[in-house]
Amino acid sequence: DSKNNHETNEEQADKEQQEAIEKIDEVQNEIDKLNEQASEEILKVEQKYNKLRQPYFGKRSELIAKIPNFWVTAVSALLNEEDEEALQYLTKVDVQEFEDIKSGYKINFHFDDNPYFDNKVISKEFHLNDTGEPSSKATPINWKEGKDLTKKAGGSPAKAGKKRGHEEQESFFIWFLDTGDAGADELGEVIKDDIWPNPLQYYLASEIDEDADEEGEMD
Amino acid sequence: DSKNNHETNEEQADKEQQEAIEKIDEVQNEIDKLNEQASEEILKVEQKYNKLRQPYFGKRSELIAKIPNFWVTAVSALLNEEDEEALQYLTKVDVQEFEDIKSGYKINFHFDDNPYFDNKVISKEFHLNDTGEPSSKATPINWKEGKDLTKKAGGSPAKAGKKRGHEEQESFFIWFLDTGDAGADELGEVIKDDIWPNPLQYYLASEIDEDADEEGEMD
Ligand SMILES: [Ca+2]
Ligand SMILES: [Ca+2]
Ligand SMILES: [Mg+2]
Ligand SMILES: [Mg+2]
Repeated sequence: DSKNNHETNEEQADKEQQEAIEKIDEVQNEIDKLNEQASEEILKVEQKYNKLRQPYFGKRSELIAKIPNFWVTAVSALLNEEDEEALQYLTKVDVQEFEDIKSGYKINFHFDDNPYFDNKVISKEFHLNDTGEPSSKATPINWKEGKDLTKKAGGSPAKAGKKRGHEEQESFFIWFLDTGDAGADELGEVIKDDIWPNPLQYYLASEIDEDADEEGEMD
Repeated sequence: DSKNNHETNEEQADKEQQEAIEKIDEVQNEIDKLNEQASEEILKVEQKYNKLRQPYFGKRSELIAKIPNFWVTAVSALLNEEDEEALQYLTKVDVQEFEDIKSGYKINFHFDDNPYFDNKVISKEFHLNDTGEPSSKATPINWKEGKDLTKKAGGSPAKAGKKRGHEEQESFFIWFLDTGDAGADELGEVIKDDIWPNPLQYYLASEIDEDADEEGEMD
């Protein structure tokens, strides 16, 4: 019965391996718990600093309001000529990061009375929906008659390519109609992660560009 | 001199705007400081949990050592047939995350005496160099004569495509020669971010695959 002994040894080894696998699974559960705790603590740090940053964002908005056309200048690289005309009436931009990371963020554009639309605030918001999928929604814009810039983009061949021979850029306002690809919204991410953290550097870079353009045009 | 008055008002406005810009810059510096503090606190949380996870990783390694061929089975999807033969001698894998995030991480592969190479441990390490660029280095492998698997890959047409008609995979060991693209080392990231956090699921998935293959081969 050396064959039986051999089988018993093999069975014994299988049993020990099975037990080891079950114990690895238990240890793995402990590691998973620590990972969750780490994520929660990191979220709390982020929430704390979101609160601490808030008064500085408020102060920054007050100072920005003293500079005419600050925001339209800062974001002008994203705009075509007609967008720039409409965004002369943009008085304030702010980005709200929601408490829970899953709740996402919201970008608010505040406007003075203007000849383009009736909205005081136009917003676009990004969050995860109930099934965990990225999702976005935007304020419907109440355009004044004949002023809808999303219907003009590329519609006027005379204007297209007018500015320094470049192709006319799609209207910035089309972004508020496009809530389809919330998981990869490049413009939302540029505003939240690049421009909002330091709009002054975009403003100053854009001012220098404009000065250079003006000099160029004088030649 | 209404023209002079006008110029003075304009100059006054320019001065106020210049002051506002300087103040925005000061506020921005405060925001930047808070961002740095937030990063430091988050790093401390990560360091704390790295320490707390350590004993569980140690316990997990002890349990894994009781299962023959655990690691070669877990990573077998990354291997060609000759790699798998050499990695029968792989006894332990561990990933060290260095204290400072800039110092990166190191993956260690521990081996029993084996007919392929003399090394007891083969490592690959990722860190940021002095100029902040991603950089990597790896242990030179002391291959035994005629056993260098990095020189065999694709060199034997008879063996290529032998396994279920698939094209022979490049040797896993070539990874230790390739320290050129440290910023986008896919294999390093798969091991650190996917396999190391939960190797059991890779082991079990691979075992199921092998069982399915064996059944398939019996048909
Ligand atoms: Ca522009
Ligand atoms: Ca394989
Ligand atoms: Mg303004
Ligand atoms: Mg083993």
